[in-house]
Amino acid sequence: MAHQEGTAPLSRSFTGRVLRVDLTQGRIDVETLDDAFYRRYLGGWGTIAHCLLREVHPGADPLGPANRLVFATGVVTGLPLSGAARHAVGAKSPLTGGFGAAEVGGFWGTELKRAGVDAIVVEGRAPRPVYLWVHDGQADLRDAAHLWGLETKECEARLREELGDARIRVACIGPGGENLVRYACIMNDLKDAAGRTGLGAVMGSKNLKAIAVRGTGRITPADPETIQRLAKWFASKVEELAYGWHTLGTGAAMPTFELTGNLPVRNFRDGGFPVEKISPETIRDTIRIGMDGCFACAIRCKKVVKVDEPYPVDPAYGGPEYETLAALGSACGVDDLIAIAKANERCNAYTVDTISAGMAIAFAMECYERGLLSPEEVGGLDLRFGNAEAMLALVEQIARRQGLGDFLAEGVRRMAERIGRGSEAFAMHVKGQEYPMHEPRLKRALALGYAISPTGADHNHSLHDTALEKEGLALQNLRELGVLEPMPLDDLGPAKVRATWVYIVDQIAQNSAVLCDFVPWSFSQRAEIVRAATGWNFTLFEWMKAGERVLNLARLFNAREGFTAADDWLPLRSFQPATSGPLAHTAVDPARLGEALGTLYRVAGWDPHTGWPTRGRLEELGLEWAVEYLPPAGRRAG
Amino acid sequence: MAHQEGTAPLSRSFTGRVLRVDLTQGRIDVETLDDAFYRRYLGGWGTIAHCLLREVHPGADPLGPANRLVFATGVVTGLPLSGAARHAVGAKSPLTGGFGAAEVGGFWGTELKRAGVDAIVVEGRAPRPVYLWVHDGQADLRDAAHLWGLETKECEARLREELGDARIRVACIGPGGENLVRYACIMNDLKDAAGRTGLGAVMGSKNLKAIAVRGTGRITPADPETIQRLAKWFASKVEELAYGWHTLGTGAAMPTFELTGNLPVRNFRDGGFPVEKISPETIRDTIRIGMDGCFACAIRCKKVVKVDEPYPVDPAYGGPEYETLAALGSACGVDDLIAIAKANERCNAYTVDTISAGMAIAFAMECYERGLLSPEEVGGLDLRFGNAEAMLALVEQIARRQGLGDFLAEGVRRMAERIGRGSEAFAMHVKGQEYPMHEPRLKRALALGYAISPTGADHNHSLHDTALEKEGLALQNLRELGVLEPMPLDDLGPAKVRATWVYIVDQIAQNSAVLCDFVPWSFSQRAEIVRAATGWNFTLFEWMKAGERVLNLARLFNAREGFTAADDWLPLRSFQPATSGPLAHTAVDPARLGEALGTLYRVAGWDPHTGWPTRGRLEELGLEWAVEYLPPAGRRAG
Repeated sequence: MAHQEGTAPLSRSFTGRVLRVDLTQGRIDVETLDDAFYRRYLGGWGTIAHCLLREVHPGADPLGPANRLVFATGVVTGLPLSGAARHAVGAKSPLTGGFGAAEVGGFWGTELKRAGVDAIVVEGRAPRPVYLWVHDGQADLRDAAHLWGLETKECEARLREELGDARIRVACIGPGGENLVRYACIMNDLKDAAGRTGLGAVMGSKNLKAIAVRGTGRITPADPETIQRLAKWFASKVEELAYGWHTLGTGAAMPTFELTGNLPVRNFRDGGFPVEKISPETIRDTIRIGMDGCFACAIRCKKVVKVDEPYPVDPAYGGPEYETLAALGSACGVDDLIAIAKANERCNAYTVDTISAGMAIAFAMECYERGLLSPEEVGGLDLRFGNAEAMLALVEQIARRQGLGDFLAEGVRRMAERIGRGSEAFAMHVKGQEYPMHEPRLKRALALGYAISPTGADHNHSLHDTALEKEGLALQNLRELGVLEPMPLDDLGPAKVRATWVYIVDQIAQNSAVLCDFVPWSFSQRAEIVRAATGWNFTLFEWMKAGERVLNLARLFNAREGFTAADDWLPLRSFQPATSGPLAHTAVDPARLGEALGTLYRVAGWDPHTGWPTRGRLEELGLEWAVEYLPPAGRRAG
Repeated sequence: MAHQEGTAPLSRSFTGRVLRVDLTQGRIDVETLDDAFYRRYLGGWGTIAHCLLREVHPGADPLGPANRLVFATGVVTGLPLSGAARHAVGAKSPLTGGFGAAEVGGFWGTELKRAGVDAIVVEGRAPRPVYLWVHDGQADLRDAAHLWGLETKECEARLREELGDARIRVACIGPGGENLVRYACIMNDLKDAAGRTGLGAVMGSKNLKAIAVRGTGRITPADPETIQRLAKWFASKVEELAYGWHTLGTGAAMPTFELTGNLPVRNFRDGGFPVEKISPETIRDTIRIGMDGCFACAIRCKKVVKVDEPYPVDPAYGGPEYETLAALGSACGVDDLIAIAKANERCNAYTVDTISAGMAIAFAMECYERGLLSPEEVGGLDLRFGNAEAMLALVEQIARRQGLGDFLAEGVRRMAERIGRGSEAFAMHVKGQEYPMHEPRLKRALALGYAISPTGADHNHSLHDTALEKEGLALQNLRELGVLEPMPLDDLGPAKVRATWVYIVDQIAQNSAVLCDFVPWSFSQRAEIVRAATGWNFTLFEWMKAGERVLNLARLFNAREGFTAADDWLPLRSFQPATSGPLAHTAVDPARLGEALGTLYRVAGWDPHTGWPTRGRLEELGLEWAVEYLPPAGRRAG
């Protein structure tokens, strides 16, 4: 990569420069995306979806050289503003076989932009391990033989040392990614995971150990005053608007979740859990040594924990987020906080997604208890729910694909396919991606969101409709999108479907821009941030169209891979009440969910039979170029 | 109607109070629409479409008692702001048999709101002529026997006299409405016409001569400071942003129109016209005595003309707007400015739409020249193009339904049906409504707009794509709706279709709110005005959804009346070049228009075969209640 042509700061927050890295050829090119591209797609998920659809041929092996691995910042990434320190990573997912993407905070994305690069598209496979070094307009591929096998912390330290700059930011994989765990993640800054859909395995399959970045350029928004004003406004409001996340971090509401039934217990089977043993309050009072946050964010939602006995937990890896506390904790029946913290540390060191790992372990535990996995098959582990040591042992085995871990590394869908004998009923996944830690039997909008998310079950592409039960900030904000009235949790009528739809569309726009969902910017403020970043007279109308555009591209990617409406469905367990606890008498009604999905398809402009985007909706979104990617049956008028 | 319950000003710009006037029963009730109704429908067209769809049964006689005549202000009507002095009037149209509506400025709408009333719904038919008197929370029906037959000026004067208040505002009909001219208009303030779709005939059919209003209440926006700031901003920019309209009034661009071919000449047959004889510059230099405007508007686009010889033209009726200059002028081949000014005065006195009247006369002239109307049939008039006296005589005859005028009062569709012999080819109407004075052979987006407007050919529900040929304010503004690039006039590709679609949707939102199209508020500013008016955290996203909602209701009304895609089409002449002039070698390509309509249906979410709104789009817009109004074949999923 040559030096940047010009060094004069742009009067907007992005350069449009994309590094095209061909690992097979060992070649790096630079491509520049134009202003209109960013205005239509915003970056992040938009860049990823656009690239994957055009470049990854249908049926491509997610772990083969033809897959693309895309690191994409968005138009707001790196602004000195709460919630703007994120980027997205995407590829065809080895977990689902469909569209894969994850967003992540920290400092890496901001650093990449400061280095004059908006996105990196990696293709091919290096003949031997390499890392990519991006620094102020230059990029090189370097040998990584000496890094292969290292945990993330060692990898980062070695890179900083050998490149001679302690301020280098590193995104990398550990053994989990190298060993192609299907839900391996990519960690940056040690604490921040592009967690879901197995992107770490894609990185591993390409023999790409790490991307180290260093940039000293400035990200210059078109209207710095507005950015500053918004930043100050939110910083002054953080206690009011994000109290729980600010003081306790993610999971602040865990005790409430346990009471309402939102907290998954023993593979979503049961209710009732000694949540006080693993809650963020307890963490604060016991193992927490501080809070940390992403670049420029006033919330600082990230716990940092430190443990010495009975085994050390390294604070360099932060601490367990809510999803981790539930997935490796309550979902496995584990109430040993230190074990969970240790498992979290290991997952971050090995680059394994804590949600999918926890759910794979929970599924194995339930199979074991039911006699569907024999003591021999589990390598002699006492795999009953609640065994913290077994959980910890399995995290190790998964990352190294050793023993039972090699099986668990495939994810619960493949596990259930192999085990059979009815285990599919409680294999908690959609499209192959394991459930996150929120209960669709409680929040019916989640049932819709889990079902239709292009990445499989994902709580970040779902309306948490507890927010809509009554008047409050969430409803006040959602009025900006035409959601005018409160609605009960168990409602799945057209108004709920519409609320879910606009909410998800907004989330996909956030994943494109890339903005953090935790900062309660109003929808108008999101558009205002884009306006200030870019200098466009950008509107909320465009924001929503961009979200819809990108979501349709992701769904289209899946359609081409053979996904149909049949893949937009939940495992049987969600249609049955829990064995005990708050959800002992309630479940998702499949008839009502089916009806709501029908409404959602119609609202979304998706074919009611296949769930594929219709030609008409693609055309409305300015995506007529994408019609050819529809399966032939979907290209007809409609 | 009782006194208003409370007199405390609301912290928003509307009351929601609707007068329900049953003329058959002589009864007046008050209904109150709620906040959510206004947020979803905005008033104006929204109130009209909602009412007509629910209350006017399919097949109802537009001139029978079952029709509703709705006068509806919108959430911005009456704000002290340029472009906000408008209201809308609607009914099932006697001209088209479908959704009828027209918007009008002046002072009447503001006065109605000051009287504490947002809308009036008139049903039934009075046994004898009556007028409605609305004043500060009270309303009465009064005998109008002494007013029947009067021209509008006399009617207004008598009402002010007998009600004892010179500040009373009057909307009324003259002989044109009384005689059920199918394109009779309703005039308010003598100069302002709810011109199109024949609403004056509906008023006449109900024996309702006038609605006199007087209100002393205040319209209190939620955020008066923002309204004031916007008003001042625009007032200071009026020369820059609305120069032509401000200085010359409508038709400022007439000479350019003649050069480009936009100016219709002799029933859209020819090109080339001595435009300088009838242009606004000439008017300014000869018969103009001043400019006038609507309540609080800084543009003041309305010419006032006065003539003494050879016959007087009364300045009380204002002066001819562009549409009138072209319809009664160039479209009839008439270049006698004083005759046009006189015809305009007569149309305003008689309440006859100048566009449809001009086009009916032009059509008759062409038929006469072709021998399709014999000298006997035209009562001995020399009906060749260009005969100003014949044009003037026909205006009289139309209003009184005398002689040939009785035939012309039916509109060109019915005239062509009666005349036959190929005359349909140059009967310039869509859905029965006569073409306005802009050329779809020049501006291809107009071809789309004329075709799909629910009221028939209408230049106010159409993108004038001259604005999009190159960079400029229009494109800069349209970027807010995702239209990013210039496009040529003859383009009818997907990008043009989308631009047309979002533009029309915005216009329908304007007709609902009710805002004037002449004030170049940006789209964001429109949402800002609604926000300031209402106190809602209203967004451009909602604005566009409201426009789409109302447009779909209007299309749905037509679908139920039997309109299909076949009605979304232009007369043959638009597909043939003009005989001479700038359009001598160009015409709308029917294949390309058909393709563009197909794209537009898909973009709009309308059935590609019928043009009806699909269930899915209705559901997306929160109109699931309206699905039952679809013809049975349209109710299936989609």
